[in-house]
Amino acid sequence: MIKLDHIGFVVDDITSYAELFSALGLTGATDPVEHPGQRTSASFINVGGEDDVYIEVLEPAHDSSPVTNFLKKKGGGLHHLCFEVDDIENISKNLVGKGFKMVNPPEDCAAYDKNLKRECKNVTKIAFFILGDRLLVELIEKGV
Amino acid sequence: MIKLDHIGFVVDDITSYAELFSALGLTGATDPVEHPGQRTSASFINVGGEDDVYIEVLEPAHDSSPVTNFLKKKGGGLHHLCFEVDDIENISKNLVGKGFKMVNPPEDCAAYDKNLKRECKNVTKIAFFILGDRLLVELIEKGV
Repeated sequence: MIKLDHIGFVVDDITSYAELFSALGLTGATDPVEHPGQRTSASFINVGGEDDVYIEVLEPAHDSSPVTNFLKKKGGGLHHLCFEVDDIENISKNLVGKGFKMVNPPEDCAAYDKNLKRECKNVTKIAFFILGDRLLVELIEKGV
Repeated sequence: MIKLDHIGFVVDDITSYAELFSALGLTGATDPVEHPGQRTSASFINVGGEDDVYIEVLEPAHDSSPVTNFLKKKGGGLHHLCFEVDDIENISKNLVGKGFKMVNPPEDCAAYDKNLKRECKNVTKIAFFILGDRLLVELIEKGV
């Protein structure tokens, strides 16, 4: 199983973009939550109708955030695609074996569960890879 | 009604990226079809599981294509988000009224129907807008 979970979109001001998406008809942005590991703050907007597909509007929470340079150099914009998988440890090993570059190995991401008010016993896990030389891909195994 | 239809991703070689997505588990890329209006060639990959959400992997079909500069300057990458709407003419007027910049007014896009083998009496229509200063948004009203 692999399916799109969200599109990461880097901005300098989450609130103003949440208002722009709202004007487009995409309402219901979640309150921003900080992710200590990535040093980002993010708000999620459901863009999948009745399905769980989101735009993650994110901004740096610290100068040392991985998205700070992206914001400074490119002015922000579409940043990554995140796909839901059901066994992130095995799939990550498998992708490394196939030669994909792993940017971050699987790690806990409690911020995702907090942001989307998910009640789960196991925390959600995420990992980052580079696809080709042009696409940052995040994998997510949602806690249950 | 507004929901994500696809993510536009500009590359220099559709075939090699279709293979990379396939290695990730995202198989079934459609055969590339040229869109004469945009002067692009595109292949669609379903990334929505049982839902109709796609990555549109696209490359310039001509030097005068709107994506040629994006490819030359940035080396390609995530390019636009496309949202399905049910009345593209009215929504486009409404967005212009709200101050959104319209890049392309609604126009026929038979290439989309051909690419996804959609049998419809009315041709699909698309339009392009800029959201804020950082996001190219396509709207699509699918032919029925």
